[in-house]
Amino acid sequence: MDSTPHRKSDHIRIVLEEDVLGKGVSTGFERLMLEHCALPEVDLDGVDLGLNLWGKSLAYPWLISSMTGGTPEAKQINLFLAEVAQTLGIAMGLGSQRAAIENPDLAATYQVRSVAPDILLFANLGLVQLNYGYGLAEAQRAVAMIEADALILHLNPLQEAVQPDGDRRWSGLWPKLETLVQGLEVPVIVKEVGNGISGPVAKRLQECGVKAIDVAGAGGTSWSEVEAHRQTDRQAKEVAHNFADWGLPTALSLQQVVQNTEQIPIFASGGIRSGIDGAKAIALGATLVGSAAPVLAEATVNAQRVYDHYQARLRELKIAAFCCDAANLTQLAQVPLWDRQSGQRLTKP
Amino acid sequence: MDSTPHRKSDHIRIVLEEDVLGKGVSTGFERLMLEHCALPEVDLDGVDLGLNLWGKSLAYPWLISSMTGGTPEAKQINLFLAEVAQTLGIAMGLGSQRAAIENPDLAATYQVRSVAPDILLFANLGLVQLNYGYGLAEAQRAVAMIEADALILHLNPLQEAVQPDGDRRWSGLWPKLETLVQGLEVPVIVKEVGNGISGPVAKRLQECGVKAIDVAGAGGTSWSEVEAHRQTDRQAKEVAHNFADWGLPTALSLQQVVQNTEQIPIFASGGIRSGIDGAKAIALGATLVGSAAPVLAEATVNAQRVYDHYQARLRELKIAAFCCDAANLTQLAQVPLWDRQSGQRLTKP
Amino acid sequence: MDSTPHRKSDHIRIVLEEDVLGKGVSTGFERLMLEHCALPEVDLDGVDLGLNLWGKSLAYPWLISSMTGGTPEAKQINLFLAEVAQTLGIAMGLGSQRAAIENPDLAATYQVRSVAPDILLFANLGLVQLNYGYGLAEAQRAVAMIEADALILHLNPLQEAVQPDGDRRWSGLWPKLETLVQGLEVPVIVKEVGNGISGPVAKRLQECGVKAIDVAGAGGTSWSEVEAHRQTDRQAKEVAHNFADWGLPTALSLQQVVQNTEQIPIFASGGIRSGIDGAKAIALGATLVGSAAPVLAEATVNAQRVYDHYQARLRELKIAAFCCDAANLTQLAQVPLWDRQSGQRLTKP
Amino acid sequence: MDSTPHRKSDHIRIVLEEDVLGKGVSTGFERLMLEHCALPEVDLDGVDLGLNLWGKSLAYPWLISSMTGGTPEAKQINLFLAEVAQTLGIAMGLGSQRAAIENPDLAATYQVRSVAPDILLFANLGLVQLNYGYGLAEAQRAVAMIEADALILHLNPLQEAVQPDGDRRWSGLWPKLETLVQGLEVPVIVKEVGNGISGPVAKRLQECGVKAIDVAGAGGTSWSEVEAHRQTDRQAKEVAHNFADWGLPTALSLQQVVQNTEQIPIFASGGIRSGIDGAKAIALGATLVGSAAPVLAEATVNAQRVYDHYQARLRELKIAAFCCDAANLTQLAQVPLWDRQSGQRLTKP
Ligand SMILES: Cc1cc2nc3c(=O)[nH]c(=O)nc-3n(C[C@H](O)[C@H](O)[C@H](O)COP(=O)(O)O)c2cc1C
Ligand SMILES: Cc1cc2nc3c(=O)[nH]c(=O)nc-3n(C[C@H](O)[C@H](O)[C@H](O)COP(=O)(O)O)c2cc1C
Ligand SMILES: Cc1cc2nc3c(=O)[nH]c(=O)nc-3n(C[C@H](O)[C@H](O)[C@H](O)COP(=O)(O)O)c2cc1C
Ligand SMILES: Cc1cc2nc3c(=O)[nH]c(=O)nc-3n(C[C@H](O)[C@H](O)[C@H](O)COP(=O)(O)O)c2cc1C
Repeated sequence: MDSTPHRKSDHIRIVLEEDVLGKGVSTGFERLMLEHCALPEVDLDGVDLGLNLWGKSLAYPWLISSMTGGTPEAKQINLFLAEVAQTLGIAMGLGSQRAAIENPDLAATYQVRSVAPDILLFANLGLVQLNYGYGLAEAQRAVAMIEADALILHLNPLQEAVQPDGDRRWSGLWPKLETLVQGLEVPVIVKEVGNGISGPVAKRLQECGVKAIDVAGAGGTSWSEVEAHRQTDRQAKEVAHNFADWGLPTALSLQQVVQNTEQIPIFASGGIRSGIDGAKAIALGATLVGSAAPVLAEATVNAQRVYDHYQARLRELKIAAFCCDAANLTQLAQVPLWDRQSGQRLTKP
Repeated sequence: MDSTPHRKSDHIRIVLEEDVLGKGVSTGFERLMLEHCALPEVDLDGVDLGLNLWGKSLAYPWLISSMTGGTPEAKQINLFLAEVAQTLGIAMGLGSQRAAIENPDLAATYQVRSVAPDILLFANLGLVQLNYGYGLAEAQRAVAMIEADALILHLNPLQEAVQPDGDRRWSGLWPKLETLVQGLEVPVIVKEVGNGISGPVAKRLQECGVKAIDVAGAGGTSWSEVEAHRQTDRQAKEVAHNFADWGLPTALSLQQVVQNTEQIPIFASGGIRSGIDGAKAIALGATLVGSAAPVLAEATVNAQRVYDHYQARLRELKIAAFCCDAANLTQLAQVPLWDRQSGQRLTKP
Repeated sequence: MDSTPHRKSDHIRIVLEEDVLGKGVSTGFERLMLEHCALPEVDLDGVDLGLNLWGKSLAYPWLISSMTGGTPEAKQINLFLAEVAQTLGIAMGLGSQRAAIENPDLAATYQVRSVAPDILLFANLGLVQLNYGYGLAEAQRAVAMIEADALILHLNPLQEAVQPDGDRRWSGLWPKLETLVQGLEVPVIVKEVGNGISGPVAKRLQECGVKAIDVAGAGGTSWSEVEAHRQTDRQAKEVAHNFADWGLPTALSLQQVVQNTEQIPIFASGGIRSGIDGAKAIALGATLVGSAAPVLAEATVNAQRVYDHYQARLRELKIAAFCCDAANLTQLAQVPLWDRQSGQRLTKP
Repeated sequence: MDSTPHRKSDHIRIVLEEDVLGKGVSTGFERLMLEHCALPEVDLDGVDLGLNLWGKSLAYPWLISSMTGGTPEAKQINLFLAEVAQTLGIAMGLGSQRAAIENPDLAATYQVRSVAPDILLFANLGLVQLNYGYGLAEAQRAVAMIEADALILHLNPLQEAVQPDGDRRWSGLWPKLETLVQGLEVPVIVKEVGNGISGPVAKRLQECGVKAIDVAGAGGTSWSEVEAHRQTDRQAKEVAHNFADWGLPTALSLQQVVQNTEQIPIFASGGIRSGIDGAKAIALGATLVGSAAPVLAEATVNAQRVYDHYQARLRELKIAAFCCDAANLTQLAQVPLWDRQSGQRLTKP
């Protein structure tokens, strides 16, 4: 994730042009069914999926997941995304701000508060940078740079490992994370980038004081696939491709994280492709639902396209809630889920 | 379902021309096997699948499910269907009569008693209309209009929700339903239109005094798919298509409804494509088996084609019963079912 | 099965030219694995799969299943098959002898003792004929006609039912079967023809005194498919085709029959395509393994081709036994089986 | 395996040119997921997968599985493989040395110590040869010939059985194995060649004093498929092909062998195609992971290609360990595994 502007452009181009979905793995949402309620007690327009989080109010539990920054193109994308987030009342994360920490001239490519004064907005840095000289100061700068409400620290060990020149030093990060969490004025969120968070990691993140976890599981964008396309060396490409099915599927990761944490919000992302996937994630215990890759092509065009994209997802989410007789998020969280394969009702924690 | 004659024509045309089956979902009947009996104790001609329901006698437990009305074409279709229902001794439901309630000139397009004096015949209205000014009077008019033996109220929250101009007000319908059921002279049946009835909804419908439930589950005609084809707006189409796998599969819904109700007849429809599917539905506890879309193309031609279609289904049903050594519906209901996937015998309630 | 010579020729032609396998159903053997033994204690040539049955000794537990008779072509086929059965030391069943009972001139087309003096040979009649005037006398004539060691009575309710002019009277056969079994000098075997025998039917067959049961389950030749090809009427074709997945898969039927009978030999047929399938059947409890359709094309050419076919199957069976460290049938019957799907070892009765 | 140089060349050519993978069977590794750890406590470069075995130290738990010898081409292949094994610090097995036992002139085609002085090196003979005149003397000559650290005895009953002229005498090998194991100065390893070792065989091998077992399970190179391509007789080809799904899948065999032995090292081979497969095998209890066929094409070119191939696999293995937070083999062995199909965590012994 953390990268020079040049690398970041590569990522955008590859996600737009290549097939970077995981292979041989899926989110697991396709296996789940929400229990349809043929006679809801709520009006469609009475469904209110709004929530308050960290002092901000959201119209919908949706998050435009962290993607970009650092280049003129990225700036434009970020502005379109932010404008729509403001209009629709959803949250947004910026891409990794390392480029702008290294080169403050690039800060403007991340700044979106002018068009999105009210949204819940997340700064973003790679947690591994704490092993490469970063600390509280950089975290504070990242937050301040974009007037963020919280800071996301992303975990991408696989992506780093499949790059010959990736960041390889991951030991000793836990205590540094704990210190950072205690020092920073805003909540710290930890997320993966497409391989999921396991139960034990989630448990420990909560113990460290992390305020939310985004599972970012397998089944959507695969960063080993992205790197496979970016590498030029034949062996490096092959190694990366062989990880195409790596990681915990989003639905499984979400279930594990929910079962291993208490009361902190869990975000679900990774392969969320419709509002129906989103509704399933909420029924599994998610507080916010995030998606990234599917909107990227739209965000290279204009704000209207971005708006249409997310508005459709939110409409699906609302209809799904309505068809489950869920007037709000609390009720949606309680809707029974069925497993298509076994034909059994899921036992929820 | 409820719609102007124009919208109704659209539906017919789309069902005839487009692929409107649910995607990524199936009825679940394909997973079930009836236990073959190699040495039946009954003659094939001795199999009698007749039953009495609400004072009418049926030669077979089959229902031509509610489809149409309101246009000249629909009138012709209804007459062909009714003529065959009379000949074969099966039940029939008319399409939603809202058009004729609004415009009494259209009543004739639903009237089939002249050609089907003896059949069990069901009137049809959308339950949601009770929130749009309808009440006992309209229900009585619908029944009287076609000399119906019972009134079907259909539930189609998803279909309404995916239409930008669909009926969105669903709250408060339960008590209105209860009042209507108490006031109406004929039995009230409640059905879905392709997304199934869940256990809890079934339980509450029975508590309301509803006299029968038609599960109309997922795996056959998908009304979100139909609407996807009807919409012109790109986003609306996409939203509708994303619901293509929504709903409780017919076999699952049927099992849930049977387990959550007592003694009222349960009808099974939604993706029933052969008499063998029908036999499985009865072995799962259904009293009547309904199908709609597959006969539509035949019904635009002539009565003979309709007759051939249903006669083939009934022959399959009879042969299936015979090959399970079931001389009648009571025996067919007791035939063991096996799950192909697990290789285990199903435990029946 | 029972039919005029003309109908019988149709059957042969259709099985040779059309795809008459069941659809949407398989034997279930493909799901099972025999536990490979990497270090057998037996020499390959030391594997002896011979057995004695009803006074005849067989070199292998294989049965050329009942197929034909009644026409000049059938006579030739029968002679080729019998010659090979004699050479290889396996059992053979003739096709339904009804044609020759009606017209004694046709007896010669079934007579094979001249070329197969020592084999275990089975006569064949449809059990349903007991409802159409047949009795002990006809059974005795069928046995005598071909100097049979035992009489097979086949059950084909589905095949009869999908024929507009099929035999429809099946009631009252059980006591007639019991009487016949008691009166006949040779053992009576009851078999299906491709839809399997269920546990309850097997139990009752044994109680009637039947001496062996051939499950003839689903997953191989489907007689509703054969009839679908033979019918000319569009509806009749469609009805028959809709039964393409009907019946108990051979492996499931075999397990059920074994569990519901005691000590009588069970034969396994229906979709047995290799000696490995055969070995699995024996590990599930079968005494003999039968196959029919796959040899038919060879049997229209010459005895050598038939020989090559069965010799290959027997070689597979022997190698399979060897690779399971089974020196004989008793040991092969005890080899553990694994379910590919669940990854679990099968619990055997 | 044991064969004249001519037969050995055939094998190489067929493996290079034909599809010799098992059909209808897979290793089962594709069904398993390693539990991803999003925040490892180890540096990528801190992952040390080295081990000591029988006095030799390995940098990675990988084995270039036994393949060839006996021809000039084989000599070249062996030298390339050995050179890379030396460079990478992995183990290597030579192909069956029977050819060189029969004809000592061929010994040089197996000798690789000059280029691989430090590697863990395995001699190879077919265990069945103990029934064909071989004994302690031949075993000692095989070991001495290549200065091996241990002797592999391979079991290939199926491969022998599908060859019309294969070795058929397998009885009485157990006591001979026990004697050999006691007499030989170096450890004896027993392996299959692609059909797996069952629990009971593993248990008994350990009781015989065998020092390690290589499961060589199904899902990779199938030797019945190889022989099917080598045979010219139509029936022999067909018989061999029908065994294409024979054998215990590698993952299943590995689990069974681990559960049925104590403390001896278990090697996993058969269809291992990536370092990720290898990591899964270690998490299931394997000590070494072996692969053969995939490197063969590279080994006909030059050492660099062989190096690139194995280096990529080892990199994958290391990254997999890193992404599971496993700093060493002990930790990798404890990583939880999940079953994709059931969505459940595997219970490990
Ligand atoms: C183009 C692109 C760039 C991304 N950059 C970042 C990033 O800088 N920081 C981060 O935490 N996640 C990043 N992600 C990961 C997403 O935030 C998210 O975790 C994941 O991709 C969601 O899966 P989806 O793309 O399948 O919806 C990026 C994703 C995409 C598609
Ligand atoms: C063309 C068409 C029109 C329909 N119109 C109505 C209707 O007006 N009222 C209603 O209750 N159901 C209606 N249905 C739904 C059916 O009655 C039934 O619930 C369902 O479609 C059965 O599934 P199948 O088409 O897969 O057999 C209609 C179905 C079709 C195919
Ligand atoms: C061409 C043909 C004719 C058959 N005729 C008879 C018959 O007359 N009597 C009978 O009991 N079974 C008959 N069978 C059924 C077989 O004996 C057997 O039960 C079944 O077909 C075995 O399955 P397979 O063909 O998949 O091996 C016939 C099968 C075939 C293929
Ligand atoms: C070309 C070739 C030759 C082989 N020769 C031998 C042999 O001589 N001795 C032996 O024990 N295994 C032999 N094997 C089997 C391998 O050692 C190993 O058990 C198995 O093939 C591993 O599966 P894989 O090829 O799918 O990786 C050979 C494999 C191949 C591909």
